[in-house]
Amino acid sequence: MVNAAGTAMMSRFGKPAAMPKKEPKVGLWMIGACGGVGSTVALGLAALRRGITESTGLVTALAPFRRAGLVAPASITVGGHEIRSCTLLDSVRESQSGAGLFSAELVKSCGPQLRSMQRNLRPGTLCGAGPTMRQFADASLRVDDRSPAEAVERLSADLSAFRQRCKLDHVVVIHVASSEPQLRRQPAHGDFKKLQRAMLRPGSNVLPASSIYALAAIESGCAYINFTPSPGMKIPALTRRAAERGIAYMGSDGKTGETLVKSALAPMFAMRNLSVLSWVGENILGNRDGKVLRDPAARAGKLNSKDKTLSRILGRKTVTGVSIDFVESLDDWKVAWDFIHFAGFLGTKMSMQFTWQGSDSILAAPLVIDLARLAALECAAGRSGVMRHLAFFFKDPIDSEEHELSVQWRQLVEHVAVAQT
Amino acid sequence: MVNAAGTAMMSRFGKPAAMPKKEPKVGLWMIGACGGVGSTVALGLAALRRGITESTGLVTALAPFRRAGLVAPASITVGGHEIRSCTLLDSVRESQSGAGLFSAELVKSCGPQLRSMQRNLRPGTLCGAGPTMRQFADASLRVDDRSPAEAVERLSADLSAFRQRCKLDHVVVIHVASSEPQLRRQPAHGDFKKLQRAMLRPGSNVLPASSIYALAAIESGCAYINFTPSPGMKIPALTRRAAERGIAYMGSDGKTGETLVKSALAPMFAMRNLSVLSWVGENILGNRDGKVLRDPAARAGKLNSKDKTLSRILGRKTVTGVSIDFVESLDDWKVAWDFIHFAGFLGTKMSMQFTWQGSDSILAAPLVIDLARLAALECAAGRSGVMRHLAFFFKDPIDSEEHELSVQWRQLVEHVAVAQT
Amino acid sequence: MVNAAGTAMMSRFGKPAAMPKKEPKVGLWMIGACGGVGSTVALGLAALRRGITESTGLVTALAPFRRAGLVAPASITVGGHEIRSCTLLDSVRESQSGAGLFSAELVKSCGPQLRSMQRNLRPGTLCGAGPTMRQFADASLRVDDRSPAEAVERLSADLSAFRQRCKLDHVVVIHVASSEPQLRRQPAHGDFKKLQRAMLRPGSNVLPASSIYALAAIESGCAYINFTPSPGMKIPALTRRAAERGIAYMGSDGKTGETLVKSALAPMFAMRNLSVLSWVGENILGNRDGKVLRDPAARAGKLNSKDKTLSRILGRKTVTGVSIDFVESLDDWKVAWDFIHFAGFLGTKMSMQFTWQGSDSILAAPLVIDLARLAALECAAGRSGVMRHLAFFFKDPIDSEEHELSVQWRQLVEHVAVAQT
Amino acid sequence: MVNAAGTAMMSRFGKPAAMPKKEPKVGLWMIGACGGVGSTVALGLAALRRGITESTGLVTALAPFRRAGLVAPASITVGGHEIRSCTLLDSVRESQSGAGLFSAELVKSCGPQLRSMQRNLRPGTLCGAGPTMRQFADASLRVDDRSPAEAVERLSADLSAFRQRCKLDHVVVIHVASSEPQLRRQPAHGDFKKLQRAMLRPGSNVLPASSIYALAAIESGCAYINFTPSPGMKIPALTRRAAERGIAYMGSDGKTGETLVKSALAPMFAMRNLSVLSWVGENILGNRDGKVLRDPAARAGKLNSKDKTLSRILGRKTVTGVSIDFVESLDDWKVAWDFIHFAGFLGTKMSMQFTWQGSDSILAAPLVIDLARLAALECAAGRSGVMRHLAFFFKDPIDSEEHELSVQWRQLVEHVAVAQT
Repeated sequence: MVNAAGTAMMSRFGKPAAMPKKEPKVGLWMIGACGGVGSTVALGLAALRRGITESTGLVTALAPFRRAGLVAPASITVGGHEIRSCTLLDSVRESQSGAGLFSAELVKSCGPQLRSMQRNLRPGTLCGAGPTMRQFADASLRVDDRSPAEAVERLSADLSAFRQRCKLDHVVVIHVASSEPQLRRQPAHGDFKKLQRAMLRPGSNVLPASSIYALAAIESGCAYINFTPSPGMKIPALTRRAAERGIAYMGSDGKTGETLVKSALAPMFAMRNLSVLSWVGENILGNRDGKVLRDPAARAGKLNSKDKTLSRILGRKTVTGVSIDFVESLDDWKVAWDFIHFAGFLGTKMSMQFTWQGSDSILAAPLVIDLARLAALECAAGRSGVMRHLAFFFKDPIDSEEHELSVQWRQLVEHVAVAQT
Repeated sequence: MVNAAGTAMMSRFGKPAAMPKKEPKVGLWMIGACGGVGSTVALGLAALRRGITESTGLVTALAPFRRAGLVAPASITVGGHEIRSCTLLDSVRESQSGAGLFSAELVKSCGPQLRSMQRNLRPGTLCGAGPTMRQFADASLRVDDRSPAEAVERLSADLSAFRQRCKLDHVVVIHVASSEPQLRRQPAHGDFKKLQRAMLRPGSNVLPASSIYALAAIESGCAYINFTPSPGMKIPALTRRAAERGIAYMGSDGKTGETLVKSALAPMFAMRNLSVLSWVGENILGNRDGKVLRDPAARAGKLNSKDKTLSRILGRKTVTGVSIDFVESLDDWKVAWDFIHFAGFLGTKMSMQFTWQGSDSILAAPLVIDLARLAALECAAGRSGVMRHLAFFFKDPIDSEEHELSVQWRQLVEHVAVAQT
Repeated sequence: MVNAAGTAMMSRFGKPAAMPKKEPKVGLWMIGACGGVGSTVALGLAALRRGITESTGLVTALAPFRRAGLVAPASITVGGHEIRSCTLLDSVRESQSGAGLFSAELVKSCGPQLRSMQRNLRPGTLCGAGPTMRQFADASLRVDDRSPAEAVERLSADLSAFRQRCKLDHVVVIHVASSEPQLRRQPAHGDFKKLQRAMLRPGSNVLPASSIYALAAIESGCAYINFTPSPGMKIPALTRRAAERGIAYMGSDGKTGETLVKSALAPMFAMRNLSVLSWVGENILGNRDGKVLRDPAARAGKLNSKDKTLSRILGRKTVTGVSIDFVESLDDWKVAWDFIHFAGFLGTKMSMQFTWQGSDSILAAPLVIDLARLAALECAAGRSGVMRHLAFFFKDPIDSEEHELSVQWRQLVEHVAVAQT
Repeated sequence: MVNAAGTAMMSRFGKPAAMPKKEPKVGLWMIGACGGVGSTVALGLAALRRGITESTGLVTALAPFRRAGLVAPASITVGGHEIRSCTLLDSVRESQSGAGLFSAELVKSCGPQLRSMQRNLRPGTLCGAGPTMRQFADASLRVDDRSPAEAVERLSADLSAFRQRCKLDHVVVIHVASSEPQLRRQPAHGDFKKLQRAMLRPGSNVLPASSIYALAAIESGCAYINFTPSPGMKIPALTRRAAERGIAYMGSDGKTGETLVKSALAPMFAMRNLSVLSWVGENILGNRDGKVLRDPAARAGKLNSKDKTLSRILGRKTVTGVSIDFVESLDDWKVAWDFIHFAGFLGTKMSMQFTWQGSDSILAAPLVIDLARLAALECAAGRSGVMRHLAFFFKDPIDSEEHELSVQWRQLVEHVAVAQT
């Protein structure tokens, strides 16, 4: 399938050498671009371009994806929306000195590229944002879009301008902003026409900010991925609009730490017919996401998406519980302790516990790059709708009941293999 | 495939109701029958027969095996060899009061059945046993078989008598005795004729005890499973003899605790392209197996089989280490602490650790029953040779490079599904 | 001080042999006698009397207390109040079979004594009890004392009758019932006369149940100890009344697990000038106390007393957090995970974490016996007021700012040594 | 005691303002100066001098030591012996980029001072060093002192020159080099005269390197502290020589991590009469010390000193075990997991486990500064002999049976308080 010359031309990331036409140009537009995750994505892409880092953490750098025709990470163009005044460079410096992520040298040598990416960033919207979010916002942003409709128009224009200015074939919008509270359903959510009318009302809260960004992606024809538990496209009127407009989308809530472990470990208990009596987890974290999650409403959304994995794999009888606490000194580090109480043969009770100590940004950033590559592949193939094969990446995969990591992995690998042939 | 009447007749363990001919009678013969594992198997079978326990812990009680035509656990006949003077009932009472396994009531109500099983037990051999094993042995056993040949003949006669007396269609021999030191290769191991000659020599150590039992199983036409890291059938002359005699066999070393977790968890790191720098484990345990493992030679065998899983899944670059220490107060409980140090995106180091607290006997016993059922199925179907589809149950599966739990599971389920049709 | 003959007569618990007059008779009256803690105390005293258990867990069995003239545990007479219909024997059987505490044999051989102790138990009161407590209560108890005054009179009469019937020199009342919500202050709490008037009102809630029991102890001249975070004597009118009546008392909230560890470990960080940034703990437990603590009001009281230790030892700047969750499968077992994040020299952050897995009843019961012995010693010496030297036993010691375990230990040992001379 | 003017002059470290004569000049001479600990001490002193770090981790910065007349850390002069070619600055840069200790800025701004301290460093000796140590050594050092006597003379001359050149009143020698194997006793160790004769023999191994350095300290009249488990002054001939020469000394093996926790936690079990059945620990570490400890002989010395704490506090019946493994990826970080199995009332078994994750250099460095300050205080007061009051700092305190941290703390504080008055 790949000729000798082609093989020789292949980079580590499997630039699809045998492809006759030139590689499509791909843009990655991040909502919340200067947050911990967004800025680490930017730094990572810069470092990969400069060849000063390994591909560790990138799922799509593994063997099964090498010949899938994915865009090279180094050639992805970055843009994004941001409501805070901090820059990409500020943010990675803070991650470096505060949480001790990556090395000071790495940051230094990628400085120029981060500054140049900064030129593709545009002000986000506070329309639909709650009080917690507003307090993070840059003062100069306070004069806001007057209505959701106006916001969608402006943000969508930013996306189109990005596509044109950078001559991009495909743009993938990925939501990496802080978690919003769970959505309160409104009648207008069921019908796009009604929604459009409601969105015209100045100061309307008919849509949360994440859904306004999602609609902007739809309207400008971008693929859309929600890496957070925020509502995003989870509104019937929006999913229908996405279908009409032929948008490929997926979410929600990137599976990076405790839930990742659960989705690998819970099947073990099921396969061995060990009866999990209770599985409780305590999460402590110190970053902006943790601060936002002090708001009980935001936490409820997060807990809801975290809790699905276990009940889907182990069944309803297992008692599960997850708690999240903000511990500022941890910075970008998240520590999760899980205690699993289970019964074995003849009713004897046993236990297992684990502690996960990981950096949220470091774990999430490569997955954002993976998702951009995989979504762009769908765009290039002209496919749209829910990208169910990406369930592997999410705590609460849209339209998928599959939570076992190994099965999700096989589905992903098989989709890409089939797509290739 | 199963008619309405058949369904109604199905027990919880899916006795294949529609099968026209009567269920074959199966015998489970355990080497080391009165040890922690062996006696828990006996107690479990008795409790299942009396209907006073659930099927928790039995893999073959799960949905994919319900219609596979497996023998009902309650109808398995138990026999075994033992070198110690303690009885099945003594042993379960000790597990109950010492380690707090199962309830005192359970033991009480199964007493009569355990006493009746005891009648099928025969003295084991000390031929080929090391000093540690000898010191456990019953004094009256000290007058031993004079040569390995004599031992094989006697043990094999025990097996044949068991088969005849209990009118068994198939007998599965499962080795659950204490771990032996790693085998030192001898020239006679390469050729069955040479081996036979060497075995005639009185006092010969040409075969370790576990291999003498394995040969007795071969000679009496029984399926053979090695649930320990002891050599057993891992001698070229024996595997060739097994092939000649059409024996189905598998091993080695039941995957019950720490290694089980590794085989579920390590693939997660691999699938996420997280670079595991080091994975070290400390095991502490207090049972007879732990006592035996204080002998560095025996420990080496165990560590060797424990260490394969990680290198097969994660590759050679991962630094791995396992240590085992005897802590008498733990009794049958095994506590394992594993520390996993890994690098993610941009080289940032993170860690995970887990502690597993499980009872060895409770975890192993149901798997022994599973293996008896699954091996009997092969016998009934007239299949022989290595039962590779049972890799799911072993730390160091014979002739299999597959260590990922989820893949092993799929292979097992698929084998049984195919076998059914 | 002790002559040769005396030494020969000394029991393991150091009965003060040389004492010329006979040992005073001591009664231990437990509020909530048939709960996990209360029934384990009863079982323990019975087992000590029969000489079938060691003194493990009893602080007063250690060397510094051997010649202090403490009453022998075996000679303590047990009585108590209880609102549930379950007996002491029912309760220990449940602890045995459910949580696997102590051995079935131990329970069996102490059965007759537990039945005989049962005769000294009297119905408790629901006066002042909240809805959670009421739902545990025996149906036949529903017809309740009409007013707090009536309740105090009845309970106090029970105590006096116990003293007379059993010919006791000293009675120590120890509150081991489930946790009550935090107290809402009322004007009548500041003045005993006002309180007495308010208590006459039928159906009045002027005092929570724990304080009604405390007042009954005061009025009948018993020493009083509050082993729970419930209000008990923590009402100005009651402490003043206790002073008037010459009552010796102490509390609150027995220090048995996580907080015990904190009080031993936190001083280490302080002495090494390591700056504890955050110390968060997650507690899971499955007993009745855990069930009660699902009520946020009751939990608040508990968390308040648990949280004092750290801030007193480490200062206010340390971020602390404790959460408690009910996990039914754990039964009487409490699992606590604590994560300690600290900075060392040059600002480098490090961490420590621990998991404590203990049985609440087993840890608490011997301390209740210790407290009965130590309080009886004060009574015998004619001392009254706050027994500050018992701070060693409590999470939230009354009138004491000392939370370091080793300092509390020294204070206890010194008090007893001085008392002796 | 301190007048108003004096108070105003007091620095954070409590320079004893009221002292009429000027503060004595103190030199700290480290054996193994450019190792992880030594170089962190140097960096720390530089940072304290520049006022860019807090006193976190320095015991002597706590309240009880503020008016003790201790030398200000900022005014300590640093010197040392080193056998490797790396500089102080190289070493701290490696600790920064490898293990992520302290910040890159801190290193940068202390660069000039580290370079200036480097001028006080002198080549160490390989005389008496084992093969592991030799392989770390700088190639140019290979031409070594011909005999132990020659080595002592040269090293001792270095110390005297340091004292004179820097006009120091007191010099404290602190051994922070890698662990040596346990000492094999030789007849010459019992008698200084014999030892002197034996030391004249070229190539003699009569003394290990650590003891040669100790003797050099004695001969040049310096106080001596052994922060490692190496033999150092633990040779009868040397301790007698130290007494003759009026040397103040102490050791061995700084108590920085796992053992520190043990000495705080074990007394809790003892005070509560909980019976510790077993306490086993697994240590993994990745620094040079860890590399050295792969040598079973060196490890034996370390394990021996680590194991004393528990048996002294808990008694001989507790089963203890410590293992140490080298895990390179951990760099300067040491992870220790301890499992404590204990029985409580009525024989019920419970457990506790902890994981300690600390940086060896960060934990040790401030203690080295503390020891220099406290030893200099003894010199200034003209006291000599074993400084038993420093037991608080050591795993295996010389001539002290006291291992409880809180008691050691009290002894230290009381000694300093008395010394003050």
